[in-house]
Amino acid sequence: MTWEQWLDEQATAREAAGLTRRLQPRSADDPTIDLAGNDYLGLAGDPAVRQAAADAALTWGGGAGASRLVTGTLDLHDQLEHELADYLGQPSALVLSSGYAANLAVVTALADRSTHVISDAHIHASLVDAARLSRARLTVVPHSDVAAVRAALEVSTGSTASAGERALVLAESVYSVLGDAAPLADLADLCASYDALLVVDEAHGLGVHGPGLVARSGLAGHPHVVVTATLSKSLGSQGGAVLGPPALREHLVNRARPFIFDTALAPASTAAALAALGVLRARPELSDLVRERVRTLADALGVVTPDGAVLSIPMPSPQAAVTAQAAALADGVRVGCFRPPSVPDGISRLRATASAGIASADWDHAVAVLVTVAKEHQ
Amino acid sequence: MTWEQWLDEQATAREAAGLTRRLQPRSADDPTIDLAGNDYLGLAGDPAVRQAAADAALTWGGGAGASRLVTGTLDLHDQLEHELADYLGQPSALVLSSGYAANLAVVTALADRSTHVISDAHIHASLVDAARLSRARLTVVPHSDVAAVRAALEVSTGSTASAGERALVLAESVYSVLGDAAPLADLADLCASYDALLVVDEAHGLGVHGPGLVARSGLAGHPHVVVTATLSKSLGSQGGAVLGPPALREHLVNRARPFIFDTALAPASTAAALAALGVLRARPELSDLVRERVRTLADALGVVTPDGAVLSIPMPSPQAAVTAQAAALADGVRVGCFRPPSVPDGISRLRATASAGIASADWDHAVAVLVTVAKEHQ
Ligand SMILES: Cc1ncc(COP(=O)(O)O)c(C=O)c1O
Ligand SMILES: Cc1ncc(COP(=O)(O)O)c(C=O)c1O
Repeated sequence: MTWEQWLDEQATAREAAGLTRRLQPRSADDPTIDLAGNDYLGLAGDPAVRQAAADAALTWGGGAGASRLVTGTLDLHDQLEHELADYLGQPSALVLSSGYAANLAVVTALADRSTHVISDAHIHASLVDAARLSRARLTVVPHSDVAAVRAALEVSTGSTASAGERALVLAESVYSVLGDAAPLADLADLCASYDALLVVDEAHGLGVHGPGLVARSGLAGHPHVVVTATLSKSLGSQGGAVLGPPALREHLVNRARPFIFDTALAPASTAAALAALGVLRARPELSDLVRERVRTLADALGVVTPDGAVLSIPMPSPQAAVTAQAAALADGVRVGCFRPPSVPDGISRLRATASAGIASADWDHAVAVLVTVAKEHQ
Repeated sequence: MTWEQWLDEQATAREAAGLTRRLQPRSADDPTIDLAGNDYLGLAGDPAVRQAAADAALTWGGGAGASRLVTGTLDLHDQLEHELADYLGQPSALVLSSGYAANLAVVTALADRSTHVISDAHIHASLVDAARLSRARLTVVPHSDVAAVRAALEVSTGSTASAGERALVLAESVYSVLGDAAPLADLADLCASYDALLVVDEAHGLGVHGPGLVARSGLAGHPHVVVTATLSKSLGSQGGAVLGPPALREHLVNRARPFIFDTALAPASTAAALAALGVLRARPELSDLVRERVRTLADALGVVTPDGAVLSIPMPSPQAAVTAQAAALADGVRVGCFRPPSVPDGISRLRATASAGIASADWDHAVAVLVTVAKEHQ
């Protein structure tokens, strides 16, 4: 088969399954109320964040000009790393060009063929890809099933910690699709008793829960817990970070290919995240507001309040999800629509995210629209 | 072994081999002449580029707020994709958050276990990782050895194109470490006769050779050639792109995990690359200047002029490379220092990059310093 034929065949199959996705560019003055993005605290549009990004672009230029190890490390990166570590209660941080890159970096630099990676079934694609790229032995355990993690660790290390493979356990503090929290304290205890390392992705926990659920659970600085984060959601920018002991940071600087062979995060994005962190520290009530809003929305829809800002509304079919999404949009409200292959369990759903950045009247309108649409499309 | 012990052991081994690398933050007013970065045309600091990035941050905010498929596609991305495709002579383009992500995306979306990936031995780490992540069968061929590529394709497809696996050939237009150009026309011919697809990374060709060597070789739009590029080198920003037929773009939008599961490129970075493209089109003499400079430097050092803007100066040992680099820095000139594991052949080297953005007097000083340092450290 030629490549052209193969691409054609793939496109036809997608179309037949109703799964073809297309990009919809939006304008800067788009009036739609956005309950689809991940700007949970509204900081992407915060005046201080915009200004800091603009100032950095004027001062430092459009790009960092090189990878971090060559000449791309700016004072700005250094500042952001110190502020991030401080806010999350971690001894050190390393900033990368995306959350996806941060996950690839930490897993591939730690795991190899002699490592056992134990991954939650609902883990984000970036961690799935990271585990695959590392070539580690992989065990996928049922979602948030602590006993299954224990069983996997038992197989790996036997009852004494020093025998067998090194083990890495992958979890999210708040899972991206269903918005539920991981049993972090139990997982950390388990990892401590088996000398395994728990990697917690705070992509959807940071900001929504202030410094994140690792910090809120008293696990920041725990010797068996490291954290990854993205700067692109609550921090309203772009980029990612790995947080943990300085020995881990130094290891990543020297060994993590997605860090070493990638241009440093752009000055404007670095400064935007730094400014967002400043706003977040000055206004902790933003975290409270977004959680209050998600509670309101969940109550209005009659579903369980999630632990994160992501609310999942199951739909009977991919097509129903698409129609419901269009109906909400016609009423001025944009929500996400998750269909295979980007759902862990094959169930299509609307995905609505609460944000502290939406004006009150708009928020009330959005809740009313979603209640109506959800009822009509069940 | 505990994770702590393992990290410690790794650090000790690095230290003993003289291979430990540390980040050196720089300030915005650092007076050092930079021959280490990849801002080949000086566009990261161009006033129009800075201003465009700043304006975009003020207009659009610090981040795009979501992945491209959800609500992160901005008009800006659309504009940049059209301009990039137009300038490179390609039918369509897709922008990603980094060049690393662009390479991961195109290879993993096209290749799977039933694909044969044939990779040049000097290929960039991002393409190596991409091939690994795809799980394709991999053949690494000697550097720029067309006969070896043919032999690999022969094994894969037999003499008729429709038999056997789909095959993907990976090359860079200008290789990142040695600065030599790939035999693109021969590779494209080969791919055409075996129905294989040639993926050409223009990271170091774009800008230095105007629209890149694929376009300059008359291969833009060739049915068996697709291109990847980074926005972080000649375009002075951050981000990456895949360019090729619309069917490929649509396939990536629907299937490329590093595109789908990653937040869209930040507004400031998108606008910076767009503005840089405008400057480059208006001032094609920038490409001539950088190539003239690399010729001057190569002549002064008595080495062969490379095809790209990267000049490689082999050093007798990793330690000699480090000392020579420090000597140049003491004289106000920053050059890169490549040591294992980031060199394809194990040879440590100074890596000096020419840039059209350096003031004439500074450039002359830099050439003089490098000639002296190179002589003293052989
Ligand atoms: C849980 C999780 N981790 C990582 C990422 C990747 O972060 P980024 O978009 O910054 O690459 C995302 C989403 O984008 C995510 O939801
Ligand atoms: C050949 C090549 N491809 C891809 C990349 C990655 O691009 P980016 O830095 O935009 O991730 C680089 C360097 O960084 C490179 O040298």
